[in-house]
Amino acid sequence: MTELTIGDIGEHRAIEEIQKVSPSRHNGDDAAVLGHASPNSRVVVTTDMLVEGRHFRMDWSTPEQIGHKAIVQNFADIQAMGARPTAALLALSAPPSTPVSVLRGIARGIALRVADFSAELVGGDLTSGDHLVLSVTALGSLGGNLPELTIDRARPGQKVVASGEIGHSAAGLALLERYGTDFPREFAPLVAAHRTPSLVPGRGMVARSTGATAMTDNSDGLTADLGLMAQRSHVRIDLDPEAIRPSALMEEAAALLDADPWEWVLCGGEDHTLIATTATDVPSGFRTIGSVHKGPEDITIGGQSPAHRGGWVSF
Amino acid sequence: MTELTIGDIGEHRAIEEIQKVSPSRHNGDDAAVLGHASPNSRVVVTTDMLVEGRHFRMDWSTPEQIGHKAIVQNFADIQAMGARPTAALLALSAPPSTPVSVLRGIARGIALRVADFSAELVGGDLTSGDHLVLSVTALGSLGGNLPELTIDRARPGQKVVASGEIGHSAAGLALLERYGTDFPREFAPLVAAHRTPSLVPGRGMVARSTGATAMTDNSDGLTADLGLMAQRSHVRIDLDPEAIRPSALMEEAAALLDADPWEWVLCGGEDHTLIATTATDVPSGFRTIGSVHKGPEDITIGGQSPAHRGGWVSF
Repeated sequence: MTELTIGDIGEHRAIEEIQKVSPSRHNGDDAAVLGHASPNSRVVVTTDMLVEGRHFRMDWSTPEQIGHKAIVQNFADIQAMGARPTAALLALSAPPSTPVSVLRGIARGIALRVADFSAELVGGDLTSGDHLVLSVTALGSLGGNLPELTIDRARPGQKVVASGEIGHSAAGLALLERYGTDFPREFAPLVAAHRTPSLVPGRGMVARSTGATAMTDNSDGLTADLGLMAQRSHVRIDLDPEAIRPSALMEEAAALLDADPWEWVLCGGEDHTLIATTATDVPSGFRTIGSVHKGPEDITIGGQSPAHRGGWVSF
Repeated sequence: MTELTIGDIGEHRAIEEIQKVSPSRHNGDDAAVLGHASPNSRVVVTTDMLVEGRHFRMDWSTPEQIGHKAIVQNFADIQAMGARPTAALLALSAPPSTPVSVLRGIARGIALRVADFSAELVGGDLTSGDHLVLSVTALGSLGGNLPELTIDRARPGQKVVASGEIGHSAAGLALLERYGTDFPREFAPLVAAHRTPSLVPGRGMVARSTGATAMTDNSDGLTADLGLMAQRSHVRIDLDPEAIRPSALMEEAAALLDADPWEWVLCGGEDHTLIATTATDVPSGFRTIGSVHKGPEDITIGGQSPAHRGGWVSF
């Protein structure tokens, strides 16, 4: 039995398949008209493209997982401004031979994740191409008068706080690279962190409303992301080695793979962990992982230069 | 002398090249925070993906022209709701071997076109991939209490009005397919309509403010786009053959290519001509091309079934 492909059913029915999984009042015209914004709110917008073979592999992730990840990495950028994700658009290029079930799976992964945030898939575009390419745009709402949480507003004397694991996604990727999907089951949480990174709704708003001034998410790697924050804010960011120490599970995986788990912590990205700086109490759901200082625009670990530097770069 | 490529300069400098051409106050963080919207306005959003070899060819169009077209096709969708384009995002996948000059050219084409609308490129993403893929998202603002111009609100008794040429882009494409860039110079306006379709700022708002109820743009082809409007609005749309008759230049090109110019008019898309229905005066910049009737949800030409049907489909 051969599986039905996008080429078999054509563009219009393929789009209907997505809309069935992700119904929206706003969809189906030249453009989507969103509802009136809350008074005194501003729109926040970001886009991220995922290319098959570079950002995901069909033999490592299910279509649902790919859809999930595409939403998380975009919504994390919205949350990192202190805003609330409200809507997403999906532009998708796919070979005509792509099974309709793959399309449905991606749409389902997107729909589930978007629903977690009470957001909505409001539009998109579907086109043929040699590779699967997902381009997601996320919109969010930033309410009230507090400034947004930019990357250039870390201030000496503040704490650095994080919400989520650091390095788990890189460990999971290393396991997939070594074992494919036959990785030892005890490491499932690490592989899950890579395939379906978690992102808790509301965390960005909590950080903003409790006094954080700067925030970003751990997408390119800890030293890369916080190094950029240090540069843009003209501060030194010192991380507490105890607070970012690799977890026991990461240590085990590293022993098995003969890898250095500190490299995962310091250079692995894609955890999409929110990292903020604040002079007040630690926001609910966050923990302290370091402090902000005057001095050279750099990142240090317990006052020392990091053992590993770098992170994801596209070229 | 070898040309500098994106792979040579790396992701960060490549992004800086785009930002130099298209500076924005909103750019450079996890996400872009837009300014406060005008009171009683709503956000309109759309996305369109262009894949090299399918939607454009590097030997037929300059990078500037590709950037131009990517903005026009997205801003046309915003205008087709009766809204004003305000911002754009660009997600771009490119092979590392892509010359930096190509990136700069695309960015310049985008910047110029965006500036025509007093809009701004507020963010984006740059990633490596085997093909050049541009995914543009456009945002717009829909002010006031009048409803947006949807595709399902054409009403019997209305006029059909259009702003722009119909079929010129398809004629230009046919010339490029036959001659490449060595097409006879007298047909330059047709080729220009394909490479750099024009879109006049404000036309969508004019239509909305003067009483139009339905609008779309001619992106997939006249019978496809208006056929969808007829279906969704449960009306028959009759076009006046005199009003949509191929231009003299199209007739000449058709004679040369041994083609039927009516096929360009009826099935060619990508003109991005705004087509609206209204019961009141013809909006400024528009001309009457037909009328809306009760009856079978279809499109007719002078009361007859069109000689050609169909249009662009992705699969």
